[in-house]
Amino acid sequence: MRQHLLEAADLDRADATLVLDTAAQIDAALAGREVKKLPTLRGRTVVNLFFEDSTRTRISFELAAKRLSADVINFAAKGSSVSKGESLKDTALTLEAMGADAIVIRHGASGAPHRLAHWVRGSVVNAGDGTHEHPTQALLDAYTIRRRLGRVDGVRVVITGDVLHSRVARSNVRLLHTLGAEVTLVAPPTLLPVGVETWPVQVSYDLDAALPEADVVMMLRVQAERMNASFFPSAREYSRRYGLDARRMATLSDDAIVMHPGPMNRGMEIAADVADSARSTIVEQVGNGVSVRMAVLYLLLGGAPE
Amino acid sequence: MRQHLLEAADLDRADATLVLDTAAQIDAALAGREVKKLPTLRGRTVVNLFFEDSTRTRISFELAAKRLSADVINFAAKGSSVSKGESLKDTALTLEAMGADAIVIRHGASGAPHRLAHWVRGSVVNAGDGTHEHPTQALLDAYTIRRRLGRVDGVRVVITGDVLHSRVARSNVRLLHTLGAEVTLVAPPTLLPVGVETWPVQVSYDLDAALPEADVVMMLRVQAERMNASFFPSAREYSRRYGLDARRMATLSDDAIVMHPGPMNRGMEIAADVADSARSTIVEQVGNGVSVRMAVLYLLLGGAPE
Amino acid sequence: MRQHLLEAADLDRADATLVLDTAAQIDAALAGREVKKLPTLRGRTVVNLFFEDSTRTRISFELAAKRLSADVINFAAKGSSVSKGESLKDTALTLEAMGADAIVIRHGASGAPHRLAHWVRGSVVNAGDGTHEHPTQALLDAYTIRRRLGRVDGVRVVITGDVLHSRVARSNVRLLHTLGAEVTLVAPPTLLPVGVETWPVQVSYDLDAALPEADVVMMLRVQAERMNASFFPSAREYSRRYGLDARRMATLSDDAIVMHPGPMNRGMEIAADVADSARSTIVEQVGNGVSVRMAVLYLLLGGAPE
Repeated sequence: MRQHLLEAADLDRADATLVLDTAAQIDAALAGREVKKLPTLRGRTVVNLFFEDSTRTRISFELAAKRLSADVINFAAKGSSVSKGESLKDTALTLEAMGADAIVIRHGASGAPHRLAHWVRGSVVNAGDGTHEHPTQALLDAYTIRRRLGRVDGVRVVITGDVLHSRVARSNVRLLHTLGAEVTLVAPPTLLPVGVETWPVQVSYDLDAALPEADVVMMLRVQAERMNASFFPSAREYSRRYGLDARRMATLSDDAIVMHPGPMNRGMEIAADVADSARSTIVEQVGNGVSVRMAVLYLLLGGAPE
Repeated sequence: MRQHLLEAADLDRADATLVLDTAAQIDAALAGREVKKLPTLRGRTVVNLFFEDSTRTRISFELAAKRLSADVINFAAKGSSVSKGESLKDTALTLEAMGADAIVIRHGASGAPHRLAHWVRGSVVNAGDGTHEHPTQALLDAYTIRRRLGRVDGVRVVITGDVLHSRVARSNVRLLHTLGAEVTLVAPPTLLPVGVETWPVQVSYDLDAALPEADVVMMLRVQAERMNASFFPSAREYSRRYGLDARRMATLSDDAIVMHPGPMNRGMEIAADVADSARSTIVEQVGNGVSVRMAVLYLLLGGAPE
Repeated sequence: MRQHLLEAADLDRADATLVLDTAAQIDAALAGREVKKLPTLRGRTVVNLFFEDSTRTRISFELAAKRLSADVINFAAKGSSVSKGESLKDTALTLEAMGADAIVIRHGASGAPHRLAHWVRGSVVNAGDGTHEHPTQALLDAYTIRRRLGRVDGVRVVITGDVLHSRVARSNVRLLHTLGAEVTLVAPPTLLPVGVETWPVQVSYDLDAALPEADVVMMLRVQAERMNASFFPSAREYSRRYGLDARRMATLSDDAIVMHPGPMNRGMEIAADVADSARSTIVEQVGNGVSVRMAVLYLLLGGAPE
């Protein structure tokens, strides 16, 4: 592993596999313990530097760090010096000077974690930057696929929804490709990014056609505010064309799984009975998120795995 | 003890006594220690899921969990996925998947903790739901009475104020009855709930008449915004009829104590010199709150007491 | 040391030197350790009671306490009982009753920490009160000067900017005088307080004249909102007269250093290239802040140094 985890492309196949293997080792180690905690990062400081609200991601990283016995500082940028006009650079230098060993950053601007990484000697982990990347989400998705299907290589993954604005889609496309999966994007043309033809994916506009071939269906969260502004006559129309309901789920092959990064809009991109079905890995993804983030922090801060 | 603590009625007399005895054991154990901390819940995760601001209750639970060596996650629902429309159920499943062993929930809607309890395998503790219940407040009040008066059974308790909107009153009435106390509610008719005649209490509209018979006077917090809307000509008039001032306090029997759940409106429902008098247990209640919450978390998560 | 640290005048020369020596011992102890943490304050509770946002100061105290193994409670007064009208006294008694061993308070009103100290048996540390004092900032500045220049006694310090509203300036003037430094204040007359002629300082209106004699130049943060209201035609004019740019920095003696308490307005009171120059101690100050605050908490709560 390198010093930082800024985007999925930072991980070659060996790195990515090491993260997944480490997460599996951590899960196995904790399963056998009365005290669900490892002493590995005692005395280390992890700062959650969140410029956007994301309680769920913040808590996942906070728990990951605490289960490795690190000290965690939560820094919600709102109402902080940042709002007094302090630059990202000065914030970075301040956290570094206070002894932050890792900064986990969520930022509304694509590329903010890369800039941060230039200024600090510690490790930077991208917890979501604008519409760019969210690499630990891709790792937890890959970990979930591997646990459910036994492998990622050769697995056929359909990613459906607002690819244009989705950092989850970008990170997943990159990481799944690295790990040998075959990815198909399904979205209305207006929600596909310019240049998607250069991505290592198939593109389709027809969800019904894509589903029977899929081992994994990954539904992206719809951001209602973006929908209104742009392209679709209505949320109902979106749901009819690109939502996953029980009828569509029935066309999947027997072992296929349904994923969603959360939080869900039940009834919009995913029907409630699909979200709660046995095919759904949505709750497992959340649990795997903590394990994978423990693995990332462990590999970045704690040296090589035993 | 059952799996959850959702309302005072979850506790029969043996359960309630066990909580108070455990709190006493914890106080005794910590009194003799240099390091004011027990290792009991190391590796366990307690989430404070607060949909309403309540810094004082949140801190009390946070300290209780930390003094048992648990990891604590504070989740203020404002600005979280919840505000993006995530349901309480999905929030619950998310926290469960992340490994929350207990969820301490404060919610503006009566019954929210019960719903939460259906969805999780861990323990749920109600830290106040709407106008319904606040069971750990009742436990800390009972613990305070027992420490001051030596028993709860047979003690005569006068609860005064806005019973209609008070979860503290509801939980206290139930728990005090379970423990054998005799409760009298004193309030203007408009601030008593429909159906109060079925509660195991006496009702009176005359505070002056009730005080000389009381061993305990428990003053409820007045919510000024509710006063204006409803029934009384003025706060001054309320204070004159139902406030506890030095003159009224002088009519109490020698050993009677004065309680208040806090935060107080000094000069409204309680005079400043009453709040600061030797009869007042208000500060002790706060300290006892931490002990009782440690006992609850210990019994729910840590197995039976030694 | 006394029980509290409310203002720089609480520290005589021996006390102040003890804090700096203790900070140096802590730095030395941690430098040689794999686990950057001391067990000294295990089981102790430090509450950060912040009535004003100050993420940087809050984090510094939080890290200081955690590196001494204390439990830390963050209490942002906004949205708390305080906003329901609870008095500072009742907040204090509540925190005391919950077992707070130290309360670190930031408050918009000068004197609030002194009032708090009357009500609690634990220790109170002033983390900035109104325009009054910020004693740990002065300690970290003195520690930085001593590390860079080898001593504080006899050092010539120029403090420049909005002295009138600066608690940093007040605390530094007092502590630097206690430690034997010679302080010159440079500011426009409208930004000097009434009575400054009784302070143990020189006063000048001419930054260019003062710089060649300085061993230390300490730039104060300009509060733009105060500038507009009061006295200067423009920020640009302020910067021209009282800002530190590369030209002015070139007039300093070879070993002179440039300090700033942060957060900076780059381009206003300090030019970006000055802030990032080798003379600048701005980042060191931040790191030293954690060490000095560890020393203060250690001396207040943990007994005498070994």
